[in-house]
Amino acid sequence: MARDTLKVSGIIPPMVTPLLGRDQLDVEGLERLIEHILSGGVHGLFALGTTGEAPSLGYRLRRELIDRVCKQVNGRVPVFIGVTDTSFVESITLAEHAATAGASAVVIAPPYYFPAGQPELADYFTDIVNEMPLPVVLYNMPGCTKINFELDTLSMLFKHPNIIAIKDSSGQMHYYHSVIRMLREFPDKTVLIGPEEMLAEATLLGGNGGVSGGANLFPQLYVELYNAAIRQDIQTVNTLHRSVIEVSSLLYRVGRHGSSTIKGIKCALSCMDICSDVMAEPFGKFIEPERAVIEKHLAQLDDMILSQQH
Amino acid sequence: MARDTLKVSGIIPPMVTPLLGRDQLDVEGLERLIEHILSGGVHGLFALGTTGEAPSLGYRLRRELIDRVCKQVNGRVPVFIGVTDTSFVESITLAEHAATAGASAVVIAPPYYFPAGQPELADYFTDIVNEMPLPVVLYNMPGCTKINFELDTLSMLFKHPNIIAIKDSSGQMHYYHSVIRMLREFPDKTVLIGPEEMLAEATLLGGNGGVSGGANLFPQLYVELYNAAIRQDIQTVNTLHRSVIEVSSLLYRVGRHGSSTIKGIKCALSCMDICSDVMAEPFGKFIEPERAVIEKHLAQLDDMILSQQH
Amino acid sequence: MARDTLKVSGIIPPMVTPLLGRDQLDVEGLERLIEHILSGGVHGLFALGTTGEAPSLGYRLRRELIDRVCKQVNGRVPVFIGVTDTSFVESITLAEHAATAGASAVVIAPPYYFPAGQPELADYFTDIVNEMPLPVVLYNMPGCTKINFELDTLSMLFKHPNIIAIKDSSGQMHYYHSVIRMLREFPDKTVLIGPEEMLAEATLLGGNGGVSGGANLFPQLYVELYNAAIRQDIQTVNTLHRSVIEVSSLLYRVGRHGSSTIKGIKCALSCMDICSDVMAEPFGKFIEPERAVIEKHLAQLDDMILSQQH
Amino acid sequence: MARDTLKVSGIIPPMVTPLLGRDQLDVEGLERLIEHILSGGVHGLFALGTTGEAPSLGYRLRRELIDRVCKQVNGRVPVFIGVTDTSFVESITLAEHAATAGASAVVIAPPYYFPAGQPELADYFTDIVNEMPLPVVLYNMPGCTKINFELDTLSMLFKHPNIIAIKDSSGQMHYYHSVIRMLREFPDKTVLIGPEEMLAEATLLGGNGGVSGGANLFPQLYVELYNAAIRQDIQTVNTLHRSVIEVSSLLYRVGRHGSSTIKGIKCALSCMDICSDVMAEPFGKFIEPERAVIEKHLAQLDDMILSQQH
Repeated sequence: MARDTLKVSGIIPPMVTPLLGRDQLDVEGLERLIEHILSGGVHGLFALGTTGEAPSLGYRLRRELIDRVCKQVNGRVPVFIGVTDTSFVESITLAEHAATAGASAVVIAPPYYFPAGQPELADYFTDIVNEMPLPVVLYNMPGCTKINFELDTLSMLFKHPNIIAIKDSSGQMHYYHSVIRMLREFPDKTVLIGPEEMLAEATLLGGNGGVSGGANLFPQLYVELYNAAIRQDIQTVNTLHRSVIEVSSLLYRVGRHGSSTIKGIKCALSCMDICSDVMAEPFGKFIEPERAVIEKHLAQLDDMILSQQH
Repeated sequence: MARDTLKVSGIIPPMVTPLLGRDQLDVEGLERLIEHILSGGVHGLFALGTTGEAPSLGYRLRRELIDRVCKQVNGRVPVFIGVTDTSFVESITLAEHAATAGASAVVIAPPYYFPAGQPELADYFTDIVNEMPLPVVLYNMPGCTKINFELDTLSMLFKHPNIIAIKDSSGQMHYYHSVIRMLREFPDKTVLIGPEEMLAEATLLGGNGGVSGGANLFPQLYVELYNAAIRQDIQTVNTLHRSVIEVSSLLYRVGRHGSSTIKGIKCALSCMDICSDVMAEPFGKFIEPERAVIEKHLAQLDDMILSQQH
Repeated sequence: MARDTLKVSGIIPPMVTPLLGRDQLDVEGLERLIEHILSGGVHGLFALGTTGEAPSLGYRLRRELIDRVCKQVNGRVPVFIGVTDTSFVESITLAEHAATAGASAVVIAPPYYFPAGQPELADYFTDIVNEMPLPVVLYNMPGCTKINFELDTLSMLFKHPNIIAIKDSSGQMHYYHSVIRMLREFPDKTVLIGPEEMLAEATLLGGNGGVSGGANLFPQLYVELYNAAIRQDIQTVNTLHRSVIEVSSLLYRVGRHGSSTIKGIKCALSCMDICSDVMAEPFGKFIEPERAVIEKHLAQLDDMILSQQH
Repeated sequence: MARDTLKVSGIIPPMVTPLLGRDQLDVEGLERLIEHILSGGVHGLFALGTTGEAPSLGYRLRRELIDRVCKQVNGRVPVFIGVTDTSFVESITLAEHAATAGASAVVIAPPYYFPAGQPELADYFTDIVNEMPLPVVLYNMPGCTKINFELDTLSMLFKHPNIIAIKDSSGQMHYYHSVIRMLREFPDKTVLIGPEEMLAEATLLGGNGGVSGGANLFPQLYVELYNAAIRQDIQTVNTLHRSVIEVSSLLYRVGRHGSSTIKGIKCALSCMDICSDVMAEPFGKFIEPERAVIEKHLAQLDDMILSQQH
């Protein structure tokens, strides 16, 4: 996929990483998961993001995953690889592996150990983008990285031709709308929304799509919501948005910690016989009674979502 | 150094990592730095901590650093190696390298991308300590990891024989005193204070020493302060404590961002012709006018500190 | 306005408090401001909220303001009075004054000095709502109160018949959509969005309107946006939403501190010859060069907004 | 007490406010409490601080309390009155009442609803101190006010002759030591530590005393600790410091919320038959099983503390 033709838009699910153990991929589960997601008509696939537990995985496994994903997707949709790291050197190495494997772009959040100042953040991204072998999607994720791309920093970075988009997972729609406004000056850049709960509004009001974790489970739901929003079919948007909120309410709040979203998705995928629910440390998979709750909620959702699909 | 004889106490400086470039050690500077620090009579050496910019370094360089540090220290003092990582697998791999190289213990902070809940934190440490080839020092660093070892979690972890100490860099003396109180039940464990500004009080009131960044520059100052506190010579403690606060006030607040402390130490080491001041991304070294300020302040400090030393 | 007929919906501007001095109302400015706002077709008027600088005002002045507002509005629209206080007793006293003056409802955020736990918050609101002489709108404002109404707490409070709505100023649309979902169980309650930047999406996706600070300046803009969203005219919504974001971008970010929004609104009102821009401590009004910037931006906005109005 | 002779130092307990109900003082309890505290040899009495639940009390009750406290103390020690408020006007009014009643000084934290910027904070304090009829103690309490007196701001404010001291309740000893360093330039100002857990170190290393909540219960303990620290009797300091940590560990952590400290003190005072444990909203007093735990812990403490006293 040539750099100059890559338009980052639509639904690009942040794939979970199916694991059999701490350092072992669930290879068959991964294949099933990729086919399940692609069957929903998604516009890309994003591996090794937050939902993919990337920072918790060893590098060998990350490289194996990149290879397997690129090979299996085989050009059907663009593949985005998360290469966020606290170490500049390791980010570059991983990006080079992704380029060789045939990925379309990389996604990079700020280094997440030291809280950097904005000028330091700007310098970091200028330097790393210059060395990246693939187009770059910026990843705003202050909940995990402790730092936001402030608007002035972002405006400066958007001047770089190798930065093609920003994924905003801040959850701050105020900020998101400011980014949309800024894009008027940068017509070749795009913005994706992270939290799926805001996919409807983000797309209705000028955004370019979303990186929706729930699309691991129900890819068609998010694709149809995106399509309805693009054609400004507000009634369908409202119906599907309610389903998205239902998925979030029923599957992502079963546990007590911040990890509940990823645990809920992996547990549901396991209940759906798609892939294993093993988590990388520091998280552990849902066991009973949480698993039974997920199973029950999944049945409720299936009824609602299936009845809506065309 | 046998595990059963390792007592974590005294001044264990968190060594900066001298760099010539992003992925290149300043080998000669490293040698000079180690000798400079050891000449101050320190009780151990801690490589690859926060001050050592560990998360910003590539793994190859980290392994090279471990090898060089262990070889040069050559058993004169215990060597502690930071193996904190978001990936369990990479932590273990690095710890095994450290064990082979001859390190005495490893230091581990919580994984720092995902904010874990306390039960998740407890499980994580139980699992990783079980697999560690060396004794473990817990590292409480909520400013960078977003999570604190709550007292109940800590009390549970202290039951593990392979955990020998905690380094508390929270800066919360309220918490620190609670840890000291808890140690009455765990007489074989120790607690070190991170921020050197609290070394005096931490040691006067029952603690076991500190991991003082300023000991890269003035190792004898911190060693003498520690010794004075241990022998309850409160007048000398007050004099040396004032010098420590002076170091902090004059060298660690020259820049505008959180990185000012490490930048200040590295810049001062460069002014002292000990090692290079190159920083790993996302930070950059002080240039003018900051460097001139550091140089001026260093001269002021030299006068004060030299006049105190015996 | 009888309690049983009060439906909290539409645009209910949070009126600024025109001041001539620390303890002196700008009486004529207040009259002009009320007429200016009502001329835009708003659905209610909210005095003594955050935008009204209520916590910074003395109680005598607050009572005078309540009297003047109720008298001048004279039943044309419902009047909402903020009675948030750290002291239960003072909240009740102010609410009784508001009831006597003829206000329609009170608006209460959590007490904002001590950070309360959720059970404490639930008890507090149960107790205070029981003593309130008017219907109550809950006010979620974690940025100032340090506490969020968690969903379980809110669900419990919504069972109280005297609580008629919630104003959500958290800026967290994820949370907002969960509140909308909860309202399915409470069909007689409503939800208003605080930040005007999210008025479009909040109303398109099932909400009941907004408490938009910019409606002090351009009341018709927000009313038309609300109406377009209610009739699902997505194209008009997009046009007017862009104007709202423009107001926010041009008028609320001129200063450097969190106070920039209120300062910007008051400064613009002064430029429009509607009322004084004097602020209550701890804030001070914009002087040059900020005032000149506001004046210039206001001219830009006038062109854009006037060209859209019907 | 003449302004020019008031030296703020020693143990100045932040008195709880004994209540029979939301708006009713426990007058007899108040008398017993004042005598109990003064009997410990304290150096002053601070009413209407955080521990006194000041922001939760109505103004009438606050004025009654000021009158009763000043009358009963009757010049035996200086009386400090908290006049922190979000409203400048109400702060002044309360301070004037305090001056008339015979208080020695007022204590003011930043206004705590709007998070102000540092220049706004500096202006606010400059203005309010100018209008205060009594000397002013600054009160740094970022946990409740969301803002810190940064060092530059503090240095500017210390130039004002009417500001005589700062009470630092930030819990950040790093900051505290910087304040101590700054006082070298302001020899007529003093610094008190808020959290009693740091009273020992704060006084050993150059501070002037503390505002220790536990001195409501055991005034002599804190006075003896202070005296031992002043005469640099480090062994006695260590013994008494351990008791202070024991008080904190056994009495302030029985509940689950931030309110546990004040609840614990009031509950213990009630168990000691000194005054009522009624709390002002948003807090409620400890009932069973918490009260039984406090009672048991109090017995343990009595043994330890009584055995130490001379």
